[in-house]
Parts: sequence; structure tokens; C-alpha cells
Amino acid sequence: MNAALPTHLLPEIAQRETPSALIDALKARFAERCSTALVVREQHGRDESSFAAPPPAAVVFAQSTADVAYAVKLAAEYSVPVIPFGVGTSLEGHLLAIQGGISIDVSRMNRVLQINAEDLTVTVQAGVTRKQLNEEVKHTGLFFPIDPGADATLGGMSATRASGTNAVRYGTMRENVLALEVVTASGDTIRTGTRAKKSAAGYDLTRLMVGSEGTLGVITEVTVKLYPLPEAISAAVCFFPSIEAAVRTTIEVIQMGVPIARVELIDHNTVRMVNKHSKLNLREEPMLLMEFHGTPGGVKEQAELVQELASAHGGNAFEWASTPEERTRLWTARHNAYFAAIQSKPGCRAISTDTCVPISRLADCLLESVTQADASGIPYFLVGHVGDGNFHFGYLIDPDNAQERAVAEDLNHKLVNRALRLEGTCTGEHGVGLHKMDFLLTEAGDGAVEMMRTIKRALDPKDIMNPGKIFSL
Amino acid sequence: MNAALPTHLLPEIAQRETPSALIDALKARFAERCSTALVVREQHGRDESSFAAPPPAAVVFAQSTADVAYAVKLAAEYSVPVIPFGVGTSLEGHLLAIQGGISIDVSRMNRVLQINAEDLTVTVQAGVTRKQLNEEVKHTGLFFPIDPGADATLGGMSATRASGTNAVRYGTMRENVLALEVVTASGDTIRTGTRAKKSAAGYDLTRLMVGSEGTLGVITEVTVKLYPLPEAISAAVCFFPSIEAAVRTTIEVIQMGVPIARVELIDHNTVRMVNKHSKLNLREEPMLLMEFHGTPGGVKEQAELVQELASAHGGNAFEWASTPEERTRLWTARHNAYFAAIQSKPGCRAISTDTCVPISRLADCLLESVTQADASGIPYFLVGHVGDGNFHFGYLIDPDNAQERAVAEDLNHKLVNRALRLEGTCTGEHGVGLHKMDFLLTEAGDGAVEMMRTIKRALDPKDIMNPGKIFSL
Repeated sequence: MNAALPTHLLPEIAQRETPSALIDALKARFAERCSTALVVREQHGRDESSFAAPPPAAVVFAQSTADVAYAVKLAAEYSVPVIPFGVGTSLEGHLLAIQGGISIDVSRMNRVLQINAEDLTVTVQAGVTRKQLNEEVKHTGLFFPIDPGADATLGGMSATRASGTNAVRYGTMRENVLALEVVTASGDTIRTGTRAKKSAAGYDLTRLMVGSEGTLGVITEVTVKLYPLPEAISAAVCFFPSIEAAVRTTIEVIQMGVPIARVELIDHNTVRMVNKHSKLNLREEPMLLMEFHGTPGGVKEQAELVQELASAHGGNAFEWASTPEERTRLWTARHNAYFAAIQSKPGCRAISTDTCVPISRLADCLLESVTQADASGIPYFLVGHVGDGNFHFGYLIDPDNAQERAVAEDLNHKLVNRALRLEGTCTGEHGVGLHKMDFLLTEAGDGAVEMMRTIKRALDPKDIMNPGKIFSL
Repeated sequence: MNAALPTHLLPEIAQRETPSALIDALKARFAERCSTALVVREQHGRDESSFAAPPPAAVVFAQSTADVAYAVKLAAEYSVPVIPFGVGTSLEGHLLAIQGGISIDVSRMNRVLQINAEDLTVTVQAGVTRKQLNEEVKHTGLFFPIDPGADATLGGMSATRASGTNAVRYGTMRENVLALEVVTASGDTIRTGTRAKKSAAGYDLTRLMVGSEGTLGVITEVTVKLYPLPEAISAAVCFFPSIEAAVRTTIEVIQMGVPIARVELIDHNTVRMVNKHSKLNLREEPMLLMEFHGTPGGVKEQAELVQELASAHGGNAFEWASTPEERTRLWTARHNAYFAAIQSKPGCRAISTDTCVPISRLADCLLESVTQADASGIPYFLVGHVGDGNFHFGYLIDPDNAQERAVAEDLNHKLVNRALRLEGTCTGEHGVGLHKMDFLLTEAGDGAVEMMRTIKRALDPKDIMNPGKIFSL
């Protein structure tokens, strides 16, 4: 189903042998929780990216931190790669066993361990997903805002420094993880912080692990902030005569400091796909999907101000979703945009872009990219967490069509270079994985990437933790 | 003036030789900007802590990143310690040349390099102070909220992961630094990020450097977030019948999610000291000093809610400061609390505590500490960024009185253990420095501290960057 991984993306693929003695030792401890069945291995050897590689040699279904530590210690003994796996929703090839090794699936580590409603914190096992978390804390009147779209695990979201629709107001995993429990490359278990809201106690190991994409350890527990459910929530859809008008409205909203909770751009192509997929009748024009959180008075103030700004740019047909059901319907449509797009071209895969630029550069970055994408003839979807200057093109390609892939990668390449010129980043929230290793070098520079490599070599001298991702050693 | 550093705080003090060839080479490049005058060296060999050590062998006044890189490269060649210096306001012995070496003073690197008002970001040289920064961005209608009290440099604030009074709403340096320029231990210069609001591009080197206390490199440039000046600001003072009543009010304010901008506890002792020092007539009772930011309607809502919560705990005499002058007068009093306290006992030094606990544990942590401090007979001041669960006792000791010092350190020790038991941290914002190395071990555990050491050894193999701070190698 997946295309072969384009070799130019991989500096080297040297499969490392997984000795049968290791598999035997894993089976001795984990019995049926260590699987070598091809279907299980294949399921764990891919993600939502368009890449493919041979599957891992075995999959261990961990049920505890001790399980993870045991498996990592064994893998370290045999110098065999370890790839942490949550629910497989990453987008950049993070989960591919490009050097072989074993996958450690933490999805059964799905207990909410400690809800401290009085402190607005919760500690969960790494396999808890964001929807499960919100379900389990609902009775406290609190919620966890980070929403990357997919129902990802908290471990995976930490590992990729995920964010999504609510980040414009509530921040990303970077701002919302208080502490982690991590099994290191030697199989030891550490905690990276406390439940205190702030700390100046030594190196920020929490933030070092957040976004390290499994290359420095396996995240086994996550402590995150929770927020009081807003007294009032209001969602609005606004349609614009052009993408530019929608983007310029967004820029002004952010520059004025409106504490908007969500502001998502969906272009007219994508609205069409979403209408078809979700049986909706949204106007097939560029739209902003917005949400306001606060007191009833505060929400009203925000919404009025935004409506005024939108109107000045020709935004019209403000449609309000005041009931939870209507809001859910709208956000479900937004969340299904990816799948709606994939289904619009049977057999296709999406090559996703993830640039993020300073808010004033958003129009420059986005509009030129739209022109180029339109000119390419490749169908695409375009959605964006535009309040953060972050947006995603998904170029819909036939994975077996080298020409389409090349055109899409060329568009991506041009977009990234544009974003970097505008003082932005190649990845706002998806991570580097296999797909953006070259971009990272351009963005961060040799010196900074060499510092990352030095840290990696020091903390994982055998290079067993998800090797070959982020950078080549 | 300073007391000798208690030896139990230092696992070893091995002064490393600074060869005259190094000094000669520095003088050749920097001429009068490399000083070996005793008075200059002594000024750079201490901070606001109560410790003392021999001064550095020389002080280099850098004017550019290239200056810093040149000096560090030379120091690396001779394996001589390098201690970055801003304006000397750190509190935990960070600046002491306990192993000898040279101090690099960046206070002349004080240019605001790039104001991007349209993106709410600014890039400054490391020696710019927070007051200077706010002065220079005033015309944009934006401000930089992080306020640790002292007029510290942005470089120093980054290095210690500073926060202060506004952190309850705006976060700490951890949340507000977007990117750094850093001269590494080898004298190379790297950038750790872009101006994008969020990024998932590799290891979070920015956050690794923020709070690393000069042990991983010299910070030379800092890019931080700015915020629109609130449309309305209102400050209030409220007096309480007991510290407990003030604390319980604070806990409820935070738990209800009120976006209060500042909520500072000042105990009755400290109010007395402040009254005397700043010629004020505040009621000598425990008080909360609060500030609300937002739209006029939002500020009114917040203030009314807080007043209601305070009243239920016996809080009274809400006094409003609506003009900027009144607000400045109040906050100046708060900022002068430290100096007011120091002056209340001539010749004394303060041993400051800095615990931070989850908000629900604040009363438990604080009240028992007050009881013990009162029983000790040592005079003290007590102020707190209580909305974050962070507060500071300053035990006022005669630095030459070993008995007083021992009693104060014992109080501190008990307080830290209490905070750790309550799932908090030994340092919310001051950093570890020399003073909290043992506490860090207890808090983070051997494994986590060993991970910090491993990173340090890898990035600074000659151990020249502010050696002997945070942990012993």
C-alpha cells in the first residue's frame, strides 16, 4: 500500500540484525505480548506518511514501565533498535523500522494515574489518548486542550511536540507537559520534573524529551496541565472572498491580542471535499472556523471584535454554532478534512507540509504557495492553524507515480525554503522524522544539528533509540 | 562583606590556573576591555547570594558575539573556566569563580536588534535589561511581561529560567524565549530556533539552554515574545486577617481559572519593612497585591470575582490603584521588599528560599514554614508569587554568625523537603547555582542528574563553562 521510501530521504539504510536470542528472551518474558506475526509487525512498521520500509522484527505490547525498561535493557544488550509506538498517527515516518529492531507498543499502558483537579494537572500512562483523557477528566470540570486532530496518545504527542487547533490560545505540548517518566537508552527510568507549575531546577529534561521523537528514550508517563472548561464557548464560521482575506483577518486578530481559542483556515478545495465526505452544505469558499472561550461577556467581546475585523476584509455569513452538538459537527468536519481529502482521490497518499512562520509573514508564505500548488496540477487540501502561522498543504499523490511525487516534493521544498526565508520553521508540529532531515539542516544550521547529534551520542551511545530519525549520525 | 562559602555546599573547590599567556592574549585583543583590576574582578566574582569565593582572574567586557566567541575559544584552548556575567543580580552563587577562570561581562552588548511588533517578537543582545527593553518597545504598544524584580539582563534571565510577578499569567522565560544565539564551549556560535511561534524541528535546544546557568554556553542574543499592552490594567491591595486567608483566596482564584496577571503575597513582617523603607502607610497585615489585565469589561469581571473570593476569607479594605502612578508606587514597594528587608538588619545577608508547589499544596507548604521560621527567632521576610505556588522566605542572617547561618539553612532544608514531599520543586525561578546542588539530587534523582551530567560532559568536554554549578561532575 505504501510507496517505497524515496532513497534520497535516507542517507543510509543499514538494517541491523535482530538476533533470535533477543526475540527468544522477549518471548520468555512477554509470551503472547511479544508478536512476530507479519500482520502485527507491518501494522507497527508504518504511520500516516507515504513512506515504507521493512517492518520491525517483533512488537512488544508493554503494560507497564517495568515492561518497557525490561525490553529496552534487552535491546541495549544486543544493540538492537527500539521504536516506541502509540497509535500510529504520526506523519513523517517516525515509526518506520528503517534499521530494523523492535517496536514497543505502549497503547495498553492506558491508565489515567492521578487526576489532581485542585492543581489542574493529570498524570497518565503514555498510551492514554487525548479523547480518553478528556472523557476521564470530564467530571472535574477541566479539560486538556491540545488537539492535533488525530486521537493520538499523550506519549506520541509529547514525542513529536504536537499541537493543533487549540494551540493558538493554550500552547503546544512544549508548554503543557509538566513532567515525564522516561525509560532511557540504558533501560533506566527517570522522572524529568515535578508537578510544580514552574521550576528552575537544572536542565530542562522535560523539554529535551518533548519533541525528541523517540530518539532519546521511551516516554512511559506524562504529566500535563488541565484547564477549567470555559464558562462560555462559542464557535463561528466565516466565509471570505479569497484566501488572502481570510489570512489578513487572522493576522489582525492575533496582532490585536484577541485570546481566540481556535482559528482554522480551510480553503475552498477542502471545503468541497469535506462537504462530500461529511454530508455538509458549507459554502465552498475559503473559510475560517473559529472558537471563543471565556466568560459570556468575554466571549461576546471577542466575537464582536473578530466579526468587525472579518467584515472589513469582506468576510460574511458569520454562522454561529452555539450548541455543543453544532460545534461538534463543525469540528468533526475539520478533523475529517484529512480523510475527506484522501478519499477524494482513491488510492492516493498525502504529502503533508507543516511550515510555521511569524504571523506577519503568513500571507506572503501562504499565498505564493497556493499559486504554485494551483499551477502544478496536483490536487491538494489546505488547512491551517493560521493563528499560529502554521498551515498544511496535503498534496494528493499516487504513491506509485514517481512524477507526481517529485512535483509534490518540489512544491514542499519551495514552501519550506520560503518559510525559512521568512524566519519560520519547516515543521510547526509534525516533527522531522524521515521527511525533513535535510530541511532541519538548512533551518538549524550544521552547528545546532551537530549539538543535537552530540546529545544523542552521549545519551544513546549504541544508537538504539529510534535510530535514523531527525538527523543521521 | 560576603561570608566564606560554607564548604558543605561545595563538593570540591579546585582552583584551576589561569595562565598568564591567556591573559596576555585576551589583553592583546581587548586592550582595556580586559581588566585584571582587583575591584573589577571582585565586582564580577559575587552575586546577591551570601557566598564568597576568590574573584575571577580577569574580566572581559564583550561588545559583540564575535568578542564572546574569541574569548571562549581562547579559554577552551587553555582549558580555563568561563563565567558569563550580565548585571550580577543572580541569587544562588551562579557568578562565583569557584574554580577560577575569566568572567565574560555582556552588559555592553545592550542593543535591541530587531523589533517585530507585527509578530509580537523582539531580538536583543544578551546584555539588554528588562527595563531597557520595555522602554525601547514602548512606542509599539507592546511590552515584555517577565519581571523577576531586579532589572536583570535578558541573557541572565534566560540562563536562570527567571520568572517573577507576571508569570502566573504570561509564563516564565521557559515559555517566552523563542530562540537564542549561543556561543558554545568550543567557541562556535549557534542559533537555537527561529521566530516562528511554535516548532517541532528537532531537539529543543532553546529550552535546554534556558535554565542551564551558563554551564553549556554563553547566551549572546535572545528572541522573546512581546504582548499587547492591555487595554485596561487595574491593581488592587487586599489585607487579610491571616496568611492562611490570603493563601486560600489565591488558591481559589487560580482554581477558578481567573486570568489574573499578578498575585503577590507580602506578609505582615515584610509590609512593616516596606513601609519603613518606602515611606508608605500600608496596613501591617498579610496582604495580596494583585493586578488585572484585559479589556475594561474583562478586568471588571476578574476584579469583582476576586473581591468576592477574598471577602469570603475575611479579606478587606480592597484598595484600588487605577492610575499608572499609583500602580508604580505599589509595585516599586513590592520590588523593594528585598532591599527593605536587608536594610532592616544592618550588615545582614538574606538566605533566600525558592520552593514552588502545586497550587493546592501551597497552604500546607507555606503555613508550616511560617510556624518554623517564627519559632527560630531569625528575622525574615516573606513574599510570594503565590498564584504559581512559588514563594520566598529571606532569612536575614549575620553572615559571620555560623549559628544563624546554620539555623537558616536548617529552615531552608526543612522547607525544601516539605515542598518535595508535596510534589513541588526546590527552585521555582532562582536556579540551582551552588546553593541547591544537594536539593537537586534529592528532587530529580540520581538518574536525571546523571543525564544532565552526561549532556554537560558531551557539550563541554573540558568543563570550562561555569564549572561546578548545578551539579558536580
